[in-house]
Amino acid sequence: MSRPPDPRRGIRLPELASTDRAALDALLDSALVGHFALVAEDGTPAVLPTAVIRDGDRVLCHGSTGSRWMRRLAGGAPTALAVTSYDGLVVARSAFESSIRYRSAVLFGACTIVTDDKERVLELITERLLPGRVAEVRRSTTAELAATQVLALPIEDWSLRISDGWPEDEADDVAGPAWAGVVPLRQVYEAPLAAPDLAPGIEVPPSVRALAD
Amino acid sequence: MSRPPDPRRGIRLPELASTDRAALDALLDSALVGHFALVAEDGTPAVLPTAVIRDGDRVLCHGSTGSRWMRRLAGGAPTALAVTSYDGLVVARSAFESSIRYRSAVLFGACTIVTDDKERVLELITERLLPGRVAEVRRSTTAELAATQVLALPIEDWSLRISDGWPEDEADDVAGPAWAGVVPLRQVYEAPLAAPDLAPGIEVPPSVRALAD
Repeated sequence: MSRPPDPRRGIRLPELASTDRAALDALLDSALVGHFALVAEDGTPAVLPTAVIRDGDRVLCHGSTGSRWMRRLAGGAPTALAVTSYDGLVVARSAFESSIRYRSAVLFGACTIVTDDKERVLELITERLLPGRVAEVRRSTTAELAATQVLALPIEDWSLRISDGWPEDEADDVAGPAWAGVVPLRQVYEAPLAAPDLAPGIEVPPSVRALAD
Repeated sequence: MSRPPDPRRGIRLPELASTDRAALDALLDSALVGHFALVAEDGTPAVLPTAVIRDGDRVLCHGSTGSRWMRRLAGGAPTALAVTSYDGLVVARSAFESSIRYRSAVLFGACTIVTDDKERVLELITERLLPGRVAEVRRSTTAELAATQVLALPIEDWSLRISDGWPEDEADDVAGPAWAGVVPLRQVYEAPLAAPDLAPGIEVPPSVRALAD
Protein backbone atom coordinates (compact mmCIF):
# COMPACT_ATOMS: atom_id res chain seq x y z
CA MET A 1 0.00 0.00 0.00
CA SER A 2 2.94 2.38 0.23
CA ARG A 3 5.44 3.52 -2.33
CA PRO A 4 8.39 5.90 -2.05
CA PRO A 5 7.45 9.53 -2.50
CA ASP A 6 8.53 11.04 -5.78
CA PRO A 7 10.00 14.49 -5.10
CA ARG A 8 9.78 15.42 -8.76
CA ARG A 9 6.01 15.63 -8.52
CA GLY A 10 6.18 17.87 -5.46
CA ILE A 11 3.07 19.40 -4.00
CA ARG A 12 1.08 19.10 -7.21
CA LEU A 13 0.65 15.37 -6.61
CA PRO A 14 -2.86 15.11 -5.17
CA GLU A 15 -2.30 11.84 -3.36
CA LEU A 16 1.10 10.99 -2.05
CA ALA A 17 2.04 7.80 -0.32
CA SER A 18 4.69 8.74 2.19
CA THR A 19 7.24 6.83 4.22
CA ASP A 20 8.06 9.91 6.29
CA ARG A 21 7.93 8.92 9.96
CA ALA A 22 8.10 12.57 11.06
CA ALA A 23 5.01 13.31 8.97
CA LEU A 24 3.28 10.32 10.54
CA ASP A 25 4.15 11.57 14.02
CA ALA A 26 2.93 15.07 13.16
CA LEU A 27 -0.42 13.63 12.09
CA LEU A 28 -0.74 11.41 15.16
CA ASP A 29 0.16 14.36 17.39
CA SER A 30 -2.42 16.69 15.82
CA ALA A 31 -5.42 14.40 15.39
CA LEU A 32 -7.26 13.54 18.56
CA VAL A 33 -9.54 10.76 17.34
CA GLY A 34 -8.71 7.47 15.67
CA HIS A 35 -10.85 4.65 14.31
CA PHE A 36 -9.93 1.05 15.15
CA ALA A 37 -11.26 -1.49 12.65
CA LEU A 38 -11.48 -5.04 13.91
CA VAL A 39 -13.21 -8.30 13.11
CA ALA A 40 -15.94 -9.52 15.46
CA GLU A 41 -16.23 -13.09 16.69
CA ASP A 42 -18.72 -13.83 13.91
CA GLY A 43 -16.37 -12.55 11.21
CA THR A 44 -18.14 -9.26 10.57
CA PRO A 45 -16.30 -5.93 10.60
CA ALA A 46 -16.54 -3.53 13.52
CA VAL A 47 -15.21 -0.03 14.08
CA LEU A 48 -14.37 1.79 17.32
CA PRO A 49 -13.76 5.55 17.34
CA THR A 50 -11.71 6.70 20.31
CA ALA A 51 -9.18 9.29 21.41
CA VAL A 52 -5.63 8.25 20.52
CA ILE A 53 -2.35 9.67 21.77
CA ARG A 54 1.16 8.95 20.52
CA ASP A 55 3.78 7.96 23.11
CA GLY A 56 7.07 7.50 21.27
CA ASP A 57 6.79 4.41 19.10
CA ARG A 58 3.29 3.44 20.17
CA VAL A 59 -0.23 4.81 20.05
CA LEU A 60 -2.25 4.75 23.25
CA CYS A 61 -5.96 4.64 23.79
CA HIS A 62 -7.94 4.21 26.96
CA GLY A 63 -11.43 3.30 28.01
CA SER A 64 -13.60 1.29 30.27
CA THR A 65 -12.94 -2.40 30.74
CA GLY A 66 -16.69 -2.81 30.12
CA SER A 67 -16.48 -1.88 26.44
CA ARG A 68 -16.95 -4.86 24.12
CA TRP A 69 -14.54 -3.65 21.44
CA MET A 70 -11.95 -2.47 23.97
CA ARG A 71 -12.03 -5.98 25.44
CA ARG A 72 -11.55 -7.54 22.03
CA LEU A 73 -8.66 -5.21 21.21
CA ALA A 74 -7.15 -5.94 24.64
CA GLY A 75 -7.30 -9.63 23.78
CA GLY A 76 -4.90 -9.06 20.90
CA ALA A 77 -7.34 -9.09 17.99
CA PRO A 78 -5.69 -7.89 14.75
CA THR A 79 -6.61 -4.28 14.08
CA ALA A 80 -6.21 -1.47 11.58
CA LEU A 81 -6.17 1.98 13.18
CA ALA A 82 -7.02 4.94 10.95
CA VAL A 83 -5.99 8.44 11.98
CA THR A 84 -7.30 10.99 9.55
CA SER A 85 -7.04 14.76 9.33
CA TYR A 86 -9.26 16.64 6.93
CA ASP A 87 -7.21 19.73 6.10
CA GLY A 88 -9.14 21.58 3.42
CA LEU A 89 -11.11 21.68 0.21
CA VAL A 90 -9.30 21.54 -3.12
CA VAL A 91 -11.56 23.62 -5.34
CA ALA A 92 -10.75 22.82 -8.95
CA ARG A 93 -12.25 24.38 -12.07
CA SER A 94 -14.28 21.22 -12.60
CA ALA A 95 -16.22 19.13 -10.13
CA PHE A 96 -14.28 16.07 -11.26
CA GLU A 97 -10.88 17.45 -10.28
CA SER A 98 -12.10 18.91 -6.99
CA SER A 99 -11.01 16.97 -3.94
CA ILE A 100 -9.94 17.15 -0.33
CA ARG A 101 -6.64 17.97 1.33
CA TYR A 102 -6.11 15.32 3.96
CA ARG A 103 -3.55 13.30 5.85
CA SER A 104 -4.45 9.67 6.36
CA ALA A 105 -2.50 7.10 8.34
CA VAL A 106 -3.38 3.47 8.90
CA LEU A 107 -1.48 1.44 11.48
CA PHE A 108 -1.70 -2.35 11.43
CA GLY A 109 -1.03 -4.71 14.32
CA ALA A 110 -2.45 -5.78 17.64
CA CYS A 111 -2.80 -3.93 20.93
CA THR A 112 -1.31 -4.87 24.25
CA ILE A 113 -2.58 -3.86 27.67
CA VAL A 114 -0.46 -1.23 29.42
CA THR A 115 0.08 -2.22 33.03
CA ASP A 116 3.42 -0.62 33.89
CA ASP A 117 3.57 3.04 34.72
CA LYS A 118 -0.15 3.48 34.28
CA GLU A 119 -0.36 6.73 36.20
CA ARG A 120 2.28 8.35 33.99
CA VAL A 121 0.55 7.11 30.86
CA LEU A 122 -2.85 8.41 31.92
CA GLU A 123 -1.27 11.76 32.79
CA LEU A 124 0.27 11.78 29.33
CA ILE A 125 -3.18 11.30 27.81
CA THR A 126 -4.62 14.10 29.94
CA GLU A 127 -1.76 16.42 29.02
CA ARG A 128 -2.16 15.63 25.33
CA LEU A 129 -5.85 16.52 25.35
CA LEU A 130 -5.40 19.57 27.61
CA PRO A 131 -1.78 20.60 28.15
CA GLY A 132 -1.12 21.81 31.68
CA ARG A 133 -4.18 20.16 33.19
CA VAL A 134 -2.38 17.56 35.28
CA ALA A 135 -0.89 20.27 37.51
CA GLU A 136 -4.35 21.77 38.09
CA VAL A 137 -6.20 18.68 39.33
CA ARG A 138 -5.74 16.12 42.08
CA ARG A 139 -3.93 12.88 41.35
CA SER A 140 -5.94 9.89 40.21
CA THR A 141 -6.95 7.49 42.94
CA THR A 142 -5.99 3.83 42.96
CA ALA A 143 -9.60 2.94 42.19
CA GLU A 144 -9.68 5.32 39.23
CA LEU A 145 -6.47 3.88 37.84
CA ALA A 146 -7.86 0.35 38.21
CA ALA A 147 -11.09 1.24 36.39
CA THR A 148 -9.30 2.53 33.31
CA GLN A 149 -7.77 0.26 30.73
CA VAL A 150 -4.96 1.56 28.57
CA LEU A 151 -4.05 -0.16 25.32
CA ALA A 152 -0.96 0.38 23.18
CA LEU A 153 -0.54 -0.29 19.47
CA PRO A 154 3.08 -0.32 18.26
CA ILE A 155 4.01 2.02 15.40
CA GLU A 156 5.60 -0.62 13.19
CA ASP A 157 3.50 -1.49 10.17
CA TRP A 158 1.84 1.60 8.75
CA SER A 159 0.93 3.49 5.61
CA LEU A 160 0.56 7.23 5.18
CA ARG A 161 -1.07 9.23 2.42
CA ILE A 162 -0.86 12.99 2.28
CA SER A 163 -2.91 15.11 -0.07
CA ASP A 164 -1.63 18.67 0.24
CA GLY A 165 -1.60 19.82 -3.35
CA TRP A 166 -3.45 22.18 -5.65
CA PRO A 167 -6.12 21.64 -8.28
CA GLU A 168 -4.82 19.78 -11.31
CA ASP A 169 -7.16 20.95 -14.04
CA GLU A 170 -6.95 20.13 -17.71
CA ALA A 171 -5.53 22.89 -19.90
CA ASP A 172 -8.95 23.74 -21.35
CA ASP A 173 -10.29 24.35 -17.88
CA VAL A 174 -7.25 26.36 -16.75
CA ALA A 175 -7.88 28.69 -19.71
CA GLY A 176 -11.53 29.08 -18.68
CA PRO A 177 -13.26 31.52 -16.34
CA ALA A 178 -13.61 29.35 -13.22
CA TRP A 179 -11.73 30.06 -9.98
CA ALA A 180 -9.44 27.43 -8.50
CA GLY A 181 -7.67 27.17 -5.18
CA VAL A 182 -7.70 25.66 -1.75
CA VAL A 183 -9.76 26.50 1.32
CA PRO A 184 -7.87 25.34 4.43
CA LEU A 185 -9.88 23.88 7.26
CA ARG A 186 -8.91 23.75 10.89
CA GLN A 187 -10.39 22.90 14.25
CA VAL A 188 -10.71 25.70 16.77
CA TYR A 189 -11.76 25.76 20.38
CA GLU A 190 -14.50 28.22 21.24
CA ALA A 191 -14.97 30.16 24.47
CA PRO A 192 -15.19 27.82 27.47
CA LEU A 193 -18.55 27.21 29.13
CA ALA A 194 -18.64 26.88 32.93
CA ALA A 195 -20.29 23.77 34.34
CA PRO A 196 -23.78 24.40 35.78
CA ASP A 197 -22.54 23.35 39.23
CA LEU A 198 -19.37 25.46 39.20
CA ALA A 199 -19.01 27.45 42.41
CA PRO A 200 -18.86 31.25 42.02
CA GLY A 201 -15.40 32.77 41.91
CA ILE A 202 -13.53 29.88 40.32
CA GLU A 203 -11.78 31.27 37.29
CA VAL A 204 -11.01 29.59 33.99
CA PRO A 205 -7.63 27.91 34.52
CA PRO A 206 -4.51 28.54 32.41
CA SER A 207 -4.81 25.17 30.61
CA VAL A 208 -8.25 26.04 29.27
CA ARG A 209 -7.36 29.65 28.50
CA ALA A 210 -4.41 28.42 26.43
CA LEU A 211 -6.70 26.44 24.12
CA ALA A 212 -8.01 29.65 22.62
CA ASP A 213 -4.53 30.81 21.61
CA MET B 1 -25.59 -1.96 20.97
CA SER B 2 -28.39 0.58 21.28
CA ARG B 3 -30.87 1.22 24.03
CA PRO B 4 -33.70 3.71 24.32
CA PRO B 5 -32.60 7.09 25.61
CA ASP B 6 -33.66 7.84 29.16
CA PRO B 7 -34.99 11.39 29.30
CA ARG B 8 -34.76 11.43 33.08
CA ARG B 9 -30.99 11.54 32.90
CA GLY B 10 -31.03 14.48 30.51
CA ILE B 11 -27.87 16.21 29.44
CA ARG B 12 -25.87 15.04 32.43
CA LEU B 13 -25.58 11.56 30.96
CA PRO B 14 -22.11 11.50 29.42
CA GLU B 15 -22.81 8.76 26.94
CA LEU B 16 -26.23 8.39 25.50
CA ALA B 17 -27.29 5.72 23.09
CA SER B 18 -29.89 7.31 20.88
CA THR B 19 -32.52 6.02 18.48
CA ASP B 20 -33.21 9.53 17.17
CA ARG B 21 -33.07 9.40 13.38
CA ALA B 22 -33.09 13.20 13.13
CA ALA B 23 -29.98 13.32 15.33
CA LEU B 24 -28.36 10.68 13.12
CA ASP B 25 -29.15 12.73 10.02
CA ALA B 26 -27.80 15.89 11.64
CA LEU B 27 -24.52 14.12 12.34
CA LEU B 28 -24.28 12.62 8.85
CA ASP B 29 -25.04 16.04 7.36
CA SER B 30 -22.38 17.85 9.39
CA ALA B 31 -19.48 15.39 9.28
CA LEU B 32 -17.63 15.20 5.99
CA VAL B 33 -15.50 12.12 6.53
CA GLY B 34 -16.48 8.57 7.43
CA HIS B 35 -14.46 5.43 8.11
CA PHE B 36 -15.53 2.16 6.49
CA ALA B 37 -14.32 -0.93 8.34
CA LEU B 38 -14.23 -4.11 6.31
CA VAL B 39 -12.65 -7.54 6.36
CA ALA B 40 -9.97 -8.31 3.77
CA GLU B 41 -9.83 -11.53 1.76
CA ASP B 42 -7.39 -12.97 4.30
CA GLY B 43 -9.69 -12.23 7.23
CA THR B 44 -7.77 -9.25 8.59
CA PRO B 45 -9.47 -5.93 9.32
CA ALA B 46 -9.13 -2.95 7.00
CA VAL B 47 -10.31 0.64 7.25
CA LEU B 48 -11.04 3.18 4.51
CA PRO B 49 -11.50 6.87 5.34
CA THR B 50 -13.47 8.76 2.73
CA ALA B 51 -15.90 11.62 2.26
CA VAL B 52 -19.49 10.56 2.90
CA ILE B 53 -22.71 12.36 2.02
CA ARG B 54 -26.26 11.52 3.08
CA ASP B 55 -28.90 11.24 0.34
CA GLY B 56 -32.21 10.52 2.03
CA ASP B 57 -32.08 7.01 3.46
CA ARG B 58 -28.62 6.17 2.19
CA VAL B 59 -25.05 7.33 2.60
CA LEU B 60 -23.01 7.91 -0.55
CA CYS B 61 -19.29 7.77 -1.10
CA HIS B 62 -17.33 7.99 -4.30
CA GLY B 63 -13.88 7.20 -5.55
CA SER B 64 -11.79 5.66 -8.24
CA THR B 65 -12.61 2.21 -9.53
CA GLY B 66 -8.90 1.50 -9.03
CA SER B 67 -9.07 1.59 -5.23
CA ARG B 68 -8.72 -1.84 -3.64
CA TRP B 69 -11.08 -1.19 -0.74
CA MET B 70 -13.60 0.64 -2.91
CA ARG B 71 -13.68 -2.44 -5.14
CA ARG B 72 -14.23 -4.71 -2.17
CA LEU B 73 -17.04 -2.50 -0.83
CA ALA B 74 -18.56 -2.38 -4.32
CA GLY B 75 -18.57 -6.18 -4.33
CA GLY B 76 -20.96 -6.18 -1.38
CA ALA B 77 -18.53 -6.96 1.45
CA PRO B 78 -20.13 -6.45 4.88
CA THR B 79 -19.07 -3.13 6.34
CA ALA B 80 -19.37 -0.93 9.40
CA LEU B 81 -19.25 2.78 8.63
CA ALA B 82 -18.29 5.12 11.46
CA VAL B 83 -19.17 8.79 11.25
CA THR B 84 -17.76 10.69 14.21
CA SER B 85 -17.86 14.31 15.26
CA TYR B 86 -15.58 15.52 18.02
CA ASP B 87 -17.51 18.41 19.53
CA GLY B 88 -15.51 19.53 22.55
CA LEU B 89 -13.54 18.82 25.70
CA VAL B 90 -15.38 18.00 28.91
CA VAL B 91 -13.04 19.43 31.52
CA ALA B 92 -13.90 17.88 34.87
CA ARG B 93 -12.36 18.63 38.27
CA SER B 94 -10.46 15.33 38.04
CA ALA B 95 -8.59 13.80 35.15
CA PHE B 96 -10.66 10.64 35.58
CA GLU B 97 -14.00 12.34 34.94
CA SER B 98 -12.71 14.45 32.06
CA SER B 99 -13.87 13.30 28.66
CA ILE B 100 -14.91 14.36 25.20
CA ARG B 101 -18.17 15.65 23.78
CA TYR B 102 -18.81 13.69 20.63
CA ARG B 103 -21.44 12.25 18.35
CA SER B 104 -20.68 8.79 17.01
CA ALA B 105 -22.74 6.82 14.52
CA VAL B 106 -22.00 3.37 13.16
CA LEU B 107 -23.98 2.06 10.19
CA PHE B 108 -23.91 -1.64 9.38
CA GLY B 109 -24.65 -3.26 6.04
CA ALA B 110 -23.28 -3.63 2.55
CA CYS B 111 -22.82 -1.11 -0.23
CA THR B 112 -24.33 -1.19 -3.68
CA ILE B 113 -23.02 0.51 -6.80
CA VAL B 114 -25.02 3.55 -7.88
CA THR B 115 -25.59 3.42 -11.63
CA ASP B 116 -28.85 5.32 -12.10
CA ASP B 117 -28.84 9.06 -12.09
CA LYS B 118 -25.08 9.25 -11.57
CA GLU B 119 -24.76 12.85 -12.73
CA ARG B 120 -27.33 14.03 -10.19
CA VAL B 121 -25.67 12.03 -7.42
CA LEU B 122 -22.22 13.42 -8.17
CA GLU B 123 -23.66 16.93 -8.25
CA LEU B 124 -25.20 16.23 -4.87
CA ILE B 125 -21.78 15.27 -3.52
CA THR B 126 -20.21 18.43 -4.98
CA GLU B 127 -22.99 20.59 -3.52
CA ARG B 128 -22.64 18.97 -0.13
CA LEU B 129 -18.91 19.69 0.05
CA LEU B 130 -19.23 23.18 -1.45
CA PRO B 131 -22.80 24.47 -1.72
CA GLY B 132 -23.40 26.48 -4.89
CA ARG B 133 -20.38 25.07 -6.75
CA VAL B 134 -22.30 23.10 -9.38
CA ALA B 135 -23.65 26.30 -10.92
CA GLU B 136 -20.14 27.75 -11.15
CA VAL B 137 -18.41 24.94 -13.07
CA ARG B 138 -18.95 23.07 -16.33
CA ARG B 139 -20.92 19.84 -16.36
CA SER B 140 -19.03 16.59 -15.92
CA THR B 141 -18.10 14.83 -19.14
CA THR B 142 -19.21 11.32 -19.98
CA ALA B 143 -15.65 10.12 -19.45
CA GLU B 144 -15.49 11.77 -16.02
CA LEU B 145 -18.77 10.19 -14.98
CA ALA B 146 -17.53 6.78 -16.14
CA ALA B 147 -14.27 7.10 -14.18
CA THR B 148 -16.02 7.74 -10.88
CA GLN B 149 -17.64 5.00 -8.87
CA VAL B 150 -20.41 5.90 -6.45
CA LEU B 151 -21.40 3.53 -3.67
CA ALA B 152 -24.49 3.70 -1.46
CA LEU B 153 -24.93 2.22 2.02
CA PRO B 154 -28.56 2.07 3.20
CA ILE B 155 -29.41 3.74 6.52
CA GLU B 156 -31.14 0.74 8.08
CA ASP B 157 -29.07 -0.88 10.82
CA TRP B 158 -27.28 1.74 12.89
CA SER B 159 -26.33 2.84 16.35
CA LEU B 160 -25.79 6.36 17.64
CA ARG B 161 -24.09 7.62 20.75
CA ILE B 162 -24.16 11.25 21.75
CA SER B 163 -22.03 12.70 24.51
CA ASP B 164 -23.16 16.29 25.01
CA GLY B 165 -23.15 16.63 28.75
CA TRP B 166 -21.22 18.30 31.54
CA PRO B 167 -18.57 17.06 33.95
CA GLU B 168 -19.96 14.61 36.51
CA ASP B 169 -17.59 15.05 39.40
CA GLU B 170 -17.84 13.44 42.80
CA ALA B 171 -19.17 15.68 45.58
CA ASP B 172 -15.71 16.04 47.16
CA ASP B 173 -14.34 17.37 43.89
CA VAL B 174 -17.28 19.71 43.29
CA ALA B 175 -16.56 21.26 46.68
CA GLY B 176 -12.90 21.73 45.75
CA PRO B 177 -11.07 24.57 44.03
CA ALA B 178 -10.79 23.15 40.47
CA TRP B 179 -12.64 24.65 37.51
CA ALA B 180 -15.03 22.51 35.48
CA GLY B 181 -16.78 23.09 32.20
CA VAL B 182 -16.81 22.40 28.51
CA VAL B 183 -14.69 23.82 25.71
CA PRO B 184 -16.62 23.47 22.43
CA LEU B 185 -14.66 22.61 19.32
CA ARG B 186 -15.62 23.33 15.76
CA GLN B 187 -14.16 23.20 12.29
CA VAL B 188 -13.72 26.48 10.47
CA TYR B 189 -12.64 27.32 6.97
CA GLU B 190 -9.80 29.78 6.67
CA ALA B 191 -9.23 32.39 3.94
CA PRO B 192 -9.10 30.77 0.48
CA LEU B 193 -5.75 30.41 -1.28
CA ALA B 194 -5.65 30.95 -5.04
CA ALA B 195 -4.14 28.16 -7.13
CA PRO B 196 -0.60 28.96 -8.41
CA ASP B 197 -1.87 28.77 -11.99
CA LEU B 198 -4.94 30.95 -11.47
CA ALA B 199 -5.20 33.64 -14.15
CA PRO B 200 -5.22 37.25 -12.91
CA GLY B 201 -8.60 38.85 -12.46
CA ILE B 202 -10.60 35.75 -11.55
CA GLU B 203 -12.30 36.50 -8.27
CA VAL B 204 -13.16 34.14 -5.43
CA PRO B 205 -16.62 32.78 -6.30
CA PRO B 206 -19.72 33.03 -4.08
CA SER B 207 -19.56 29.34 -3.10
CA VAL B 208 -16.09 29.74 -1.62
CA ARG B 209 -16.84 33.11 -0.04
CA ALA B 210 -19.85 31.57 1.70
CA LEU B 211 -17.65 29.01 3.50
CA ALA B 212 -16.24 31.75 5.68
CA ASP B 213 -19.68 32.78 6.96
